[in-house]
Amino acid sequence: METWKTLARTTILQSKDGKYLTVENHQVGLPDGQIIEDWAWLITPDFINVVVVTETGEFLCFRQTKYAVQGTSLAIVGGYLEPGEEPLSAAQRELLEETGYTAPTWINLGTYAVDGNRGCGQAHLFLALDARWTQPINADDLEEQALLLLSRAEVEAALARGEFKVLPWSTAVALALLRLNQPILNEGST
Amino acid sequence: METWKTLARTTILQSKDGKYLTVENHQVGLPDGQIIEDWAWLITPDFINVVVVTETGEFLCFRQTKYAVQGTSLAIVGGYLEPGEEPLSAAQRELLEETGYTAPTWINLGTYAVDGNRGCGQAHLFLALDARWTQPINADDLEEQALLLLSRAEVEAALARGEFKVLPWSTAVALALLRLNQPILNEGST
Repeated sequence: METWKTLARTTILQSKDGKYLTVENHQVGLPDGQIIEDWAWLITPDFINVVVVTETGEFLCFRQTKYAVQGTSLAIVGGYLEPGEEPLSAAQRELLEETGYTAPTWINLGTYAVDGNRGCGQAHLFLALDARWTQPINADDLEEQALLLLSRAEVEAALARGEFKVLPWSTAVALALLRLNQPILNEGST
Repeated sequence: METWKTLARTTILQSKDGKYLTVENHQVGLPDGQIIEDWAWLITPDFINVVVVTETGEFLCFRQTKYAVQGTSLAIVGGYLEPGEEPLSAAQRELLEETGYTAPTWINLGTYAVDGNRGCGQAHLFLALDARWTQPINADDLEEQALLLLSRAEVEAALARGEFKVLPWSTAVALALLRLNQPILNEGST
């Protein structure tokens, strides 16, 4: 199976110097020789999300608002990568900034293309274990958010009810719960 | 907690008559009175993805290429909603078109904002059970894809290895596996 080839690319829109959004037009070559002249491609920042379990077995979540969500949503730690930043470093930075917690054990839950057709960046998902409170919160997020400590049963029920309303949050929580169901958890941690 | 308000919106880019992409500029009002003048908002079609389990307990998957993915990926049934189409109808249509299967039992796995900040459409995720082959495949997808029948253990292992490389595919598979782990499955099906 052959992948599509990018034959040419042109920037057709940049928002705020391209920090948050660049739209490109791609000329794409298909394996059968067909050429698509106008394939829109979206460049948005890569980001991390972290499911955080404390040393007492509670899940660190937020109740927060997001512009794309009606009402409030349950949420998890997350944020954009800074330029040149490694995903794990970004995850550890966001955990500390948003919650004041640190964690000794990190499990990589994978990297995923947000949109298989148009790009929209990559999601890097993590599970952090045995987190403990270290210092006060120092977040720069524009949205209001309230930190919550939920039990595993509460998180399972909230996930099943669709209360993590943003896609990568539900992905990370579901992957983390599957991982926590495995008998030998810490093998393969990063 | 108050949500942000859209005070004004202007279309700044349309790709292919807006069928696949419209970019808007939003003027946004925050709860504290602050106004953001240039918040980019992405309108892409809502889509469905379906985890399909056959009447013999196998998972219907694809091996396929996607433009945003390097190499090949494991994939599941999916596609955009047609204008005015209900998510469940789209899911049933795509199942038949892409695999030739139909299923009597459908479980709603939720609706999620793809990007909590910028939009990018909504993902409607489903689990279809007891699927059986009905008619030949009639897909209009541009990418090459090969239909695979995988065991549940194979799907669990592939998910944990990150082989479903597109975010909503991993979300749907993870949510489906959690759902299938529940003792009483069919209560609450759609």
